[in-house]
Amino acid sequence: MAAYVVGHKNPDTDSIASAIALADLMTKRGIEAVPAAQGKATPETEFVLGKFGVKAPEIISDASGKKIILVDHSDLAQSLENLAKGEILGVVDHHKLGDVTTPNPLEMWVWPAGCTCTVISAMYDFFGVQIPKNIAGIMLCAILSDTVMYKSPTCTPDDKKACEKLAKIAGVSDMMALGMDMFKVKSAVDGTPIRELVFRDYKDFNMSGKAVGIGQLEVVDLAILDKYKADLTADIAKLKGEKNLHSVFLLLTDIMKEGSELLVASDDPSVVEKAFGAKVSGTSVWLPGVMSRKKDVVPKFEKVFSA
Amino acid sequence: MAAYVVGHKNPDTDSIASAIALADLMTKRGIEAVPAAQGKATPETEFVLGKFGVKAPEIISDASGKKIILVDHSDLAQSLENLAKGEILGVVDHHKLGDVTTPNPLEMWVWPAGCTCTVISAMYDFFGVQIPKNIAGIMLCAILSDTVMYKSPTCTPDDKKACEKLAKIAGVSDMMALGMDMFKVKSAVDGTPIRELVFRDYKDFNMSGKAVGIGQLEVVDLAILDKYKADLTADIAKLKGEKNLHSVFLLLTDIMKEGSELLVASDDPSVVEKAFGAKVSGTSVWLPGVMSRKKDVVPKFEKVFSA
Repeated sequence: MAAYVVGHKNPDTDSIASAIALADLMTKRGIEAVPAAQGKATPETEFVLGKFGVKAPEIISDASGKKIILVDHSDLAQSLENLAKGEILGVVDHHKLGDVTTPNPLEMWVWPAGCTCTVISAMYDFFGVQIPKNIAGIMLCAILSDTVMYKSPTCTPDDKKACEKLAKIAGVSDMMALGMDMFKVKSAVDGTPIRELVFRDYKDFNMSGKAVGIGQLEVVDLAILDKYKADLTADIAKLKGEKNLHSVFLLLTDIMKEGSELLVASDDPSVVEKAFGAKVSGTSVWLPGVMSRKKDVVPKFEKVFSA
Repeated sequence: MAAYVVGHKNPDTDSIASAIALADLMTKRGIEAVPAAQGKATPETEFVLGKFGVKAPEIISDASGKKIILVDHSDLAQSLENLAKGEILGVVDHHKLGDVTTPNPLEMWVWPAGCTCTVISAMYDFFGVQIPKNIAGIMLCAILSDTVMYKSPTCTPDDKKACEKLAKIAGVSDMMALGMDMFKVKSAVDGTPIRELVFRDYKDFNMSGKAVGIGQLEVVDLAILDKYKADLTADIAKLKGEKNLHSVFLLLTDIMKEGSELLVASDDPSVVEKAFGAKVSGTSVWLPGVMSRKKDVVPKFEKVFSA
């Protein structure tokens, strides 16, 4: 039985590209594996897969009876249903260590890098396996997406080194032009249902016992979102009620201005001021320099919630 | 501030050798680190350190305010006090994934190998760092100890490959003779207080909410332990009461006969029969082929406790 390599819920380009790449590498190492995803590809990911002629992975939601390799997450809340009823063979990730546990020894490659595909690129080297040209292309895009074209504080020298190598293999001569094309696709919101925008890059967290959801929309110009802000604000308040959460936050990130407007729906909006030292006016606040949910947002909220 | 590299409570040779080796490698990678241990070295480890002229690491028990790199465990019950008040930079391990979590991204190298030192040996290669001769010697002994000289079911081709390489660097021409010398030291129990024998290689586990302690004594001939069995049995029952545990199990492993006698103190001794299909007579049972707590024992009990 082939193992399923699968990223987090509401998959982004890294979750899908790293599942495809790691399934290729594991199979070539002699451990048969197929890529999977916990949902359909976003427009950004569709653009990337189309660009390099790679098929979208199979969608799965339940781990029961399956062999599983997790990529791009180690939090139960972001993972498959019934994870304990499957067998986790490995985890490859670039986030904080979450609450997934296993009864058996496993293989883990976790680096504090900007993207899971950076870790997988190094794994290909370690095991002496050649990266196929089209997979190198989608890995490159995943790193450019996760690091916001090197602008995110999460970007490390390892990410840049991997991009240089992957661009060469994929035959991409101007990676930043490719990155801008990708972010323009990501910025397109017209015609998309509001809830789909909220969920485009959304994750649930357990912060000291409180259920907190944090979404993010990255755009090349925040003005694109002006006419949607009221509806987005109303929808995260609705989502908070539906899922019985303590808070839902939505980051509207302007990748050119390098900052984010945070939309807030919370039982205790004061957590935002405690985390960022900036006062929420109404239900939103501008946070200059805040680009990364993982590095700029989650640790600050975790600290406030654990206090 | 240098990071502390530290293994599990009741440190065995791998916990101490891997802390020493990884502190060396991290420092050479530019991340200043010092080795530490959660207790003093066992006679086996003392023999190994003496043989290769390596100093025992500093003893620490609390993570507060410290930078920490964990080796050879990822379970809170086996780790430092106040782990959440320190900062975990990384984990290098060869066990199941435990319940340690972090608020920040970290570096993890976890392989389903027989020994943490096998993973660290590969890390030295990956980062292009030369292993010092004396550190290669203690790493070799850690792998021979954890894999019971290749006899344990946990032993993998990676462990054997690492041993070959490390023996060459350390100038050890007959590694199995070295292994036997080490296991003879490990087998010596005369004059050791009973509680110290129980704790020589003891770990606490949280199994579906039940607190379970499992110790192991490895000897070259089980007859060595004949005159201590009654006292050991009484002491694990006492320990169970003192620590308010559901069960304490002590594996008496005969490395030549390749099996273990399991001493049992439990609120529900039927878990042993459910796990191994062998009836406990009185407070003990012989389990042929059972050599490894990690591979032969823990997964079976976890399954029974979660049922």
